[in-house]
Amino acid sequence: MATTAAAAALIPGWAAVVAGAAIVSTSSSSQLASRFSFCGARQILHHWHRKYSAMPSPPFSLRSPPPRAALLEPDGGSLVNAIVPPPDRPARIAEAQRLPRIPLSRIDLEWVHVLSEGWASPLRGFMRQTEYLQALHFNFLRLHDGSIVNMSVPIVLAIDDLQKESLGHSSAVSLVGPNGNLVAILRDIEIYKHNKEERIARTWGTIAPGLPYVEEAIVHAGNWLIGGDLEVLEPIKYNDGLDHYRLSPAELRMEFQRRKADAVFAFQLRNPVHNGHALLMTDTRKRLLEMGFKNPVLLLHPLGGYTKVDDVPLHWRMKQHDKVLEEGVLDPQTTVLAIFPSPMHYAGPTEVQWHAKARINAGADFYIVGRDPAGMAHPTEKRDLYDPDHGKMVLSMAPGLERLNILPFRVAAYDKSQNAMAFFDPSRSDDFIFISGTKMRNFAKNGENPPDGFMCPGGWQVLVEYYKSLAGEESKATKEHIMV
Amino acid sequence: MATTAAAAALIPGWAAVVAGAAIVSTSSSSQLASRFSFCGARQILHHWHRKYSAMPSPPFSLRSPPPRAALLEPDGGSLVNAIVPPPDRPARIAEAQRLPRIPLSRIDLEWVHVLSEGWASPLRGFMRQTEYLQALHFNFLRLHDGSIVNMSVPIVLAIDDLQKESLGHSSAVSLVGPNGNLVAILRDIEIYKHNKEERIARTWGTIAPGLPYVEEAIVHAGNWLIGGDLEVLEPIKYNDGLDHYRLSPAELRMEFQRRKADAVFAFQLRNPVHNGHALLMTDTRKRLLEMGFKNPVLLLHPLGGYTKVDDVPLHWRMKQHDKVLEEGVLDPQTTVLAIFPSPMHYAGPTEVQWHAKARINAGADFYIVGRDPAGMAHPTEKRDLYDPDHGKMVLSMAPGLERLNILPFRVAAYDKSQNAMAFFDPSRSDDFIFISGTKMRNFAKNGENPPDGFMCPGGWQVLVEYYKSLAGEESKATKEHIMV
Repeated sequence: MATTAAAAALIPGWAAVVAGAAIVSTSSSSQLASRFSFCGARQILHHWHRKYSAMPSPPFSLRSPPPRAALLEPDGGSLVNAIVPPPDRPARIAEAQRLPRIPLSRIDLEWVHVLSEGWASPLRGFMRQTEYLQALHFNFLRLHDGSIVNMSVPIVLAIDDLQKESLGHSSAVSLVGPNGNLVAILRDIEIYKHNKEERIARTWGTIAPGLPYVEEAIVHAGNWLIGGDLEVLEPIKYNDGLDHYRLSPAELRMEFQRRKADAVFAFQLRNPVHNGHALLMTDTRKRLLEMGFKNPVLLLHPLGGYTKVDDVPLHWRMKQHDKVLEEGVLDPQTTVLAIFPSPMHYAGPTEVQWHAKARINAGADFYIVGRDPAGMAHPTEKRDLYDPDHGKMVLSMAPGLERLNILPFRVAAYDKSQNAMAFFDPSRSDDFIFISGTKMRNFAKNGENPPDGFMCPGGWQVLVEYYKSLAGEESKATKEHIMV
Repeated sequence: MATTAAAAALIPGWAAVVAGAAIVSTSSSSQLASRFSFCGARQILHHWHRKYSAMPSPPFSLRSPPPRAALLEPDGGSLVNAIVPPPDRPARIAEAQRLPRIPLSRIDLEWVHVLSEGWASPLRGFMRQTEYLQALHFNFLRLHDGSIVNMSVPIVLAIDDLQKESLGHSSAVSLVGPNGNLVAILRDIEIYKHNKEERIARTWGTIAPGLPYVEEAIVHAGNWLIGGDLEVLEPIKYNDGLDHYRLSPAELRMEFQRRKADAVFAFQLRNPVHNGHALLMTDTRKRLLEMGFKNPVLLLHPLGGYTKVDDVPLHWRMKQHDKVLEEGVLDPQTTVLAIFPSPMHYAGPTEVQWHAKARINAGADFYIVGRDPAGMAHPTEKRDLYDPDHGKMVLSMAPGLERLNILPFRVAAYDKSQNAMAFFDPSRSDDFIFISGTKMRNFAKNGENPPDGFMCPGGWQVLVEYYKSLAGEESKATKEHIMV
């Protein structure tokens, strides 16, 4: 009796890769196809992955062998650039000063950033209602030519009743940043109801209180959404010492071309890089080389927008990632470290599609997906919010992502027999230790070192400093509390 | 400032009709396309509809003029028939008797009925996990050839822990009806987790308590779902005197062919037919004739499965529909009255897609959609659960329904100036009365008649009897209560 997901047929023309899995030949896929009534799209990959992922060094191959010449086209054919060209800025700023104003929160501004550089191409601004409904119900947008692009997360701007009234009959508004600065014009606006309950339920699959993005950006937001086309007055900068890492999709594409990459594999993360991650990334590169690519380049792409309070903050993560490159755990020659400016939803299978789609726009053709991507603990029940396998299953079947090769993450753990991180081998499971975030934190707190080979020393030192700084804040908070 | 949904471009090759709206020419749609960044698919129709629906007798036309020769192909190319042929039954029954058994609720049995006759073609049985995830996240299923079919509602069978354990390693189970009779074999089974919260949130856009289908079929259901291919031992019958109305999609297709229909327009309903509905249906036929069709046939298709307790029960509705045909309000020559065996979800924009998709499988090429289809009041808040416009908007953009012509419902109300139901004309809104279900019920309860011309006398008489029978039950219930 099969208790796992049904495998299904591969779709002709879909290039498909399994990290560390078997060659998926046309004959084997059609044999399987006859057994299953429906196409779980690239689900077969997971079937093969499960079957072979414990094998020591299985062959690794594209179903359609010839490697393509790098850089996928952006969704919709060209990258959106919603930043007003410098010569036009004075006139646009003058216009913006005359328009009714809508204030932006920090998260709204991050979305303006995302939209302005074309990460959500071909979306040109905050969603109008038909776009919103398509994202909410179908996870895609249909273009004029009938083709579809993936779009799983509503990118919307909320306003309240008073703000709505203040707009009068204006067809454009100006958007004002958290510091009072004019950021953008939103044109051909459309205002529609913000049904928060429905938005949350359909995006997160729950409306339990305590979802971080929901509490931060939705619960107290207005009851209307305002969509329109963006004209951003100048590139969004944060002046936090990290702006040089914030490469736009266009800049990333130029960088990949400069490096003569013939394949780009993207790794989304919001945690420190340990040697297990590094093993996965170097192993992926090795396998891409074996497949015939000459210069596969890694896009190491930490998420830089809003994250929940117990995630390691961006500037600590960037320090840690720098050390990983500095100490040669990842090869700086073949790694591009950059920040992905999106805020984090923690919406599991729905959000992982957004993470993958945005990387298509940056030119990636391979996307590494782990266990429970964009997942978290259920906010009110003692369980994972999402089934840990659903993220990669949904991603492999998602509309508009057919061009992207999905690389399922192989589980790495600390192998005591080798004193190093290694791919987990269930046949000798007692040799492995899983080191969780909580374990890491406790090591750092107690001044202990993790096992040798878990993380490069410089990277670990950064974390020790971070956790020390936290402890400092905590004890300060306690002291203040006592003083009161 | 536009506060309504953005219109957008028509997709080449999509036939499109607007009930009572203007000719949508290629030139006008491309003009609009340039104004809007995204394609809300057939959304433009609603834009035109709104603009023109108040006009007295606007032109009515297909964008691509030549009327097609009737009967759309079933989804997936052929109708599923999961009923075991009579010669094979003894062997299958013998096999079923030896298999582990899973009990079916009344609603489960309705789904077996739906699946067995191919209403959900090409789905051959209860969903496996990849099908379930596609339905839940994308509202479609992808077939082996890469094409997609609409599938917005999970059609699943729940089992509990004990039942799961009882299955051992069997790859097939037998399904047992509410009366203990063997109904079907489910083969190549797959068992996966039933995350009720996520299923409810993504299907209904809320998890508020009091959703009728949820309370009836999900809350107390097991924590596992079992998918597989169905072999139904004999056609499902209810022996309630209405089985002759339960035509399968294959039988409906034969009936349409027998009548030489060159267009079939479907009207889904779960309420009595008043003269406003009748006006809409006869008007639609008139317009289809004007378009060049020679014999458009109406499929009057009341839903026959589970409905909530305050809906008029099926046998009363069928009596009422019979009278409507008997008294010539609808023409029996050009109307096929049949029962759609699906249970009702009350899941608004998600469910209306299922209602439309199932009618494609029965051969319909036009589908009439009303305000707030499959909607209801929010179970815990004082508002509609869904935005009344979302149903037709989502339907018009839904994946896999591109072949179906969506006919937006024109609002009819009682016109005091004519003593008849008429299309609502906002320029003389004081002439119109809207007669709600509650109003109707109060008329019947108090022995009053509704205004002349609201409903044919025979049909009204059926409702009076129904409401009387209710009052009888209510007073009986009260008496019993007093006696206790």
